[in-house]
Amino acid sequence: MPTWIWYPGDFEICLGNAMQNRRTERGAFFPPFWKMDSHYVLVEFSKELDLQESEEVVIFTEGRANVKLDGQLLGLRVKPAMTESTLSPTVITIPAGKHKLNIKVHNQANVPSIYVEGKTVISDETWLVTYEDKEWIDESGKASDTSSGTVYLNTGRWNFNTPDNPPSKFKLAVQPLPVVNSEKQAKGTLLDFGKETFGYVKFHNLKGNGNLNLYYGESKEEALDTEKGETLDKFAFDQKEPKDFITPDSRAFRYVYVEDNQLSYDSVSMLYEYLPLEYKGSFRSSDELLNKIWDISAYTLHLTTREFFIDGIKRDRWVWSGDALQSYLMNYYLFFDSPSVTRTILNLRGKDPVTSHINTIMDYTFYWFISIYDYYTYTGDKTFIEQHYPRMQSLMDYCLSRTNANGMMEGLAGDWVFIDWADFKMSKAGELSLEQLLFYRSLETMALCADIIGNTDDNILYKKLAEELQVKIFDAFWDKEKGAFVHNREENLSSEQVTPYANIFAVLFDYLDAEKTQDVKQSVLLNPNALKITTPYMRFYELEALCKLGEHKHVLKEIRDYWGGMLKEGATSFWEKYNPDEKGTEHLAMYGRPYGKSLCHGWGASPLYLFGKYYLGVQPETPGYKTFSIRPELGDLEWIEGTVPTPTGEIKVYRDKEQIKVFVKSQSPDMEGYLYYNADKIKIQANKEYIIQVKS
Amino acid sequence: MPTWIWYPGDFEICLGNAMQNRRTERGAFFPPFWKMDSHYVLVEFSKELDLQESEEVVIFTEGRANVKLDGQLLGLRVKPAMTESTLSPTVITIPAGKHKLNIKVHNQANVPSIYVEGKTVISDETWLVTYEDKEWIDESGKASDTSSGTVYLNTGRWNFNTPDNPPSKFKLAVQPLPVVNSEKQAKGTLLDFGKETFGYVKFHNLKGNGNLNLYYGESKEEALDTEKGETLDKFAFDQKEPKDFITPDSRAFRYVYVEDNQLSYDSVSMLYEYLPLEYKGSFRSSDELLNKIWDISAYTLHLTTREFFIDGIKRDRWVWSGDALQSYLMNYYLFFDSPSVTRTILNLRGKDPVTSHINTIMDYTFYWFISIYDYYTYTGDKTFIEQHYPRMQSLMDYCLSRTNANGMMEGLAGDWVFIDWADFKMSKAGELSLEQLLFYRSLETMALCADIIGNTDDNILYKKLAEELQVKIFDAFWDKEKGAFVHNREENLSSEQVTPYANIFAVLFDYLDAEKTQDVKQSVLLNPNALKITTPYMRFYELEALCKLGEHKHVLKEIRDYWGGMLKEGATSFWEKYNPDEKGTEHLAMYGRPYGKSLCHGWGASPLYLFGKYYLGVQPETPGYKTFSIRPELGDLEWIEGTVPTPTGEIKVYRDKEQIKVFVKSQSPDMEGYLYYNADKIKIQANKEYIIQVKS
Repeated sequence: MPTWIWYPGDFEICLGNAMQNRRTERGAFFPPFWKMDSHYVLVEFSKELDLQESEEVVIFTEGRANVKLDGQLLGLRVKPAMTESTLSPTVITIPAGKHKLNIKVHNQANVPSIYVEGKTVISDETWLVTYEDKEWIDESGKASDTSSGTVYLNTGRWNFNTPDNPPSKFKLAVQPLPVVNSEKQAKGTLLDFGKETFGYVKFHNLKGNGNLNLYYGESKEEALDTEKGETLDKFAFDQKEPKDFITPDSRAFRYVYVEDNQLSYDSVSMLYEYLPLEYKGSFRSSDELLNKIWDISAYTLHLTTREFFIDGIKRDRWVWSGDALQSYLMNYYLFFDSPSVTRTILNLRGKDPVTSHINTIMDYTFYWFISIYDYYTYTGDKTFIEQHYPRMQSLMDYCLSRTNANGMMEGLAGDWVFIDWADFKMSKAGELSLEQLLFYRSLETMALCADIIGNTDDNILYKKLAEELQVKIFDAFWDKEKGAFVHNREENLSSEQVTPYANIFAVLFDYLDAEKTQDVKQSVLLNPNALKITTPYMRFYELEALCKLGEHKHVLKEIRDYWGGMLKEGATSFWEKYNPDEKGTEHLAMYGRPYGKSLCHGWGASPLYLFGKYYLGVQPETPGYKTFSIRPELGDLEWIEGTVPTPTGEIKVYRDKEQIKVFVKSQSPDMEGYLYYNADKIKIQANKEYIIQVKS
Repeated sequence: MPTWIWYPGDFEICLGNAMQNRRTERGAFFPPFWKMDSHYVLVEFSKELDLQESEEVVIFTEGRANVKLDGQLLGLRVKPAMTESTLSPTVITIPAGKHKLNIKVHNQANVPSIYVEGKTVISDETWLVTYEDKEWIDESGKASDTSSGTVYLNTGRWNFNTPDNPPSKFKLAVQPLPVVNSEKQAKGTLLDFGKETFGYVKFHNLKGNGNLNLYYGESKEEALDTEKGETLDKFAFDQKEPKDFITPDSRAFRYVYVEDNQLSYDSVSMLYEYLPLEYKGSFRSSDELLNKIWDISAYTLHLTTREFFIDGIKRDRWVWSGDALQSYLMNYYLFFDSPSVTRTILNLRGKDPVTSHINTIMDYTFYWFISIYDYYTYTGDKTFIEQHYPRMQSLMDYCLSRTNANGMMEGLAGDWVFIDWADFKMSKAGELSLEQLLFYRSLETMALCADIIGNTDDNILYKKLAEELQVKIFDAFWDKEKGAFVHNREENLSSEQVTPYANIFAVLFDYLDAEKTQDVKQSVLLNPNALKITTPYMRFYELEALCKLGEHKHVLKEIRDYWGGMLKEGATSFWEKYNPDEKGTEHLAMYGRPYGKSLCHGWGASPLYLFGKYYLGVQPETPGYKTFSIRPELGDLEWIEGTVPTPTGEIKVYRDKEQIKVFVKSQSPDMEGYLYYNADKIKIQANKEYIIQVKS
């Protein structure tokens, strides 16, 4: 089936520019503070053909196009009213036999893209593309040898599968939803849509000459606070005939406080805006609270899975690498939507030259590397690594160019060292133990990816760098007496502070021997006096580390307390930050602003991942689930059941105290794995039902 | 006076994309084959203010804007029908005192730019701009220290000095011109506009239902050859009411052959399209042929000085570095229009990363370096070097990353080694002597520019690299017996062929001692059996070298023969190539196409430069003509007179066999120089008239 194709990464960059420049703060435009790249404005698509018979081929392009068959430019009639982005197709006839078809497209405002439809000649990801074909002619008119010096990639694509739906016309889906409750206020009306949502407000049959002010709130308090709420829209109208009005920009809200004067309208509703995705993963258990937590997590992830995986829907509506990494992992247990992952990875990376860390944050650069190996592990998509390895390399070069005399990375001028939003004091100066661990993991990722694409030199290089760094990390940060990594080292002086971060990641990355692992577990992870994490962001890793260490019961208790705590506060989606010690409207504040906190934040949805990977217990053991493992764990539950999607199907798991049931549905019959339970393991093959009696 | 400002280089890149993607070949779109960059889509402008009194400031932007005063975001009302590129201004009031004003603009389709108009607060090149302000906030809402890590440049500007004429609306000027002669043909009408020209064809009161085909010709033969002419336009009409029709794209032509059916119109004229420029330089002599050559040269340069200095007006209408370098030099003796020079330099360089040579041509990369030092020499514009030194550096890094084991540069995969269009055979393989000389000169340029901006380390580095290369060049290519540089060295074997190129440039760059200079003069420059140059492009350097060696009479003879030869063939502008041995329509052919040759090519206009620099004899001795020299030379002429523009005025020179008159008009009274004549020299001060009696 033909589809619109483009230079890989370019659509992703431009869509990201559009989305990330939609943020407003109290009506004012609020753009990102990092470099935004742009698409290549002139690209050449090519395809080698071998036709059995002559074929008529229709070519649609976004942008002005030059079409060559076997090197011969085809004359196309130029029309007086020609626009740059013309969708009127060109029809050419290609004779039987071997041919080379080249289509070069220029488009400054939108991504150059093509849609080619013939009987056998169709545009798809097998076409090659370059931004620099270097096809000059010599004095005799002979074209240069184009095979030399030009780098070709396979084209990028998504789901633009009809000629009249080109990439530039991308829109999310919408669905009408009613107001759930409406309440008169002194000067206006407070609308309640029943739960956290996202979209456009619609006024039916609006007329009059006056103003319409909308104050959005994730909480009632925010909507009613016309002076301090984070988002609002103000409109002026002068229309005599009643006409529906839909707000031009979509917003996040549960509540909308409407003030109007001299205007009338029949009713208000909303258009819920979303990315259409199938909920492939599921989870149910004997605990209704956990089931609700899973449901709200799924809704939270869906709300923040849009053009890209974004942080929060109220703000920033930007793509943040550290946030996205977690969304990817949750996605593998809910939607398994690979295009959303690769769109986000490509958007975050942008283009060369690298002039700062991703999102300007050092840790976020490292998470970007890690996300690529995760993606490969879950999907087995080797082509993605082959295509984008050069972008990985140049980002790593940037990192390596900024190491200090110890070979470690510390925040230099212009670097944001983030780690986490924490309620205790920690230094961001000097060499942070977490940053070095992430740097180490990134070097390992480079080595792995170099190996995947067969680049032996790089594999050796990055392995060596990683090994050297590992030794230094233990020397610098491991404190034998504390049984933990300390937080940082400034001017060659290791600090006394133990923060959870490096210790958590050392467990996750399997960097500790058995003794050190137990040390970390006792002195940090299970230590009631350890510094407390108050974001779901770092709780993600903390709880995963505890699951890895077999603390399934403890983790369920934490989930009930923490995510259950948000539900008790009335959450209909999970938050950016939650400190159980805070009260009432304290929960709404952040960044020194009374409604600064996002109440629907992607990183709030991590139970999706924990339940799927550590209770249903499903994970790939080789890339793309070619082999897999299933380790169902009840914790303190009576029973659990659910589904984990895979690239070729799904894995269904049920466990109670007597039985385990497993069914691996797959289009790939040679997929196989092991079910681990208690001290046993049995081999599992695809498309066969397994029912095992267990004693728990 | 306020003016529209932008990120330096960005307008230049986008205007270039628009212009260079306007080429067509027989109606088909014909884009460039090198990478086209794009503007930064999100940039931040800033200015520190100190106001005596409160002031109202009007802000116009191209793109959606975010305005901050002293770090506080100003809420701007969002309108329902808001477009991305809104020109409706924002008015803010800034209180007296010290303030910081920041305006951040997003624009994907056009270059983000601003126009700020207050009593004292105005947008100009003193504003700073960045594509990455890195202004994040911490958990308390405090903004990061923006002074760290962000690179600011001074803004770019040109002549967009009113709010309603923003950069996106740039258009060249037009002027109506009549048909000079009209001739009925079998199936249509041949229009003659009297000389080579450029613009839009206009049909007055056109009506009917039918087709209109226009075949353009720089020659009568080309216009009438409907099968093989290079440019044409075909239109279809169905209009009952008579209406003027102007062709949508401007074209180069002297002749237009019009075929139409079922259409009627009153008359045809054209709109001559041009960049409005003042002819500041002039030249007259006792030889009317030379005067005509100067006039046609000036017209040729004007036709090819448009959005940028382009190669030819029929084709390619692209910006080529080697061609542009010559246009810059001619420009210093005709228009002295610096913005046209910097626009072209910035367009050619584009953005990082460097993925190929400029225009993909190795020699063209080197000419780009050389052009910057020339620009500095003629204008004294140090800011330009300061702002763009990083782009010089990264291009030189690209070159240095491609040197071979001998430290020399040879054509690698994807490199075009151009040198010249020549009628003899020469190798482009291995180490070419000309390429190494240009590389050497480029390294010297880097050292000079490093010194100008006070970068001592780089100055030392590049000097050292240049010196090492110089030694190798003489070792590899100087053939003592031949008294000349040989053409190249392949696989460590020096060739036997002597081509003019390296020898000419060695003279121009003063790299030869007196003995070697004489060798080159006799064995190459004045040797009637040496290989013949048949492009004005390389004749430029050949004749300049002869002028440097004092061969003024010989050069005048060459100019009369060569440029006079084109005039005899009916030229109304100078050509891309001219081989006096060819006959009739052979003069029109090139690249294996009967009308492939451009009959109006920028590099054809070099007499402008030769007359100004070597006959009027005026050149800067220190940057920007702070000091200068005047060496008037008659050659075989009775008298010469003319004007050479400078950044602060002009230098008028007259010489005949008895008298020299010099007048240096300047706004800079401390400008001074020397007049050299015969064996004497006298000091010349600005704004004083000098009349010197000489014996010649």
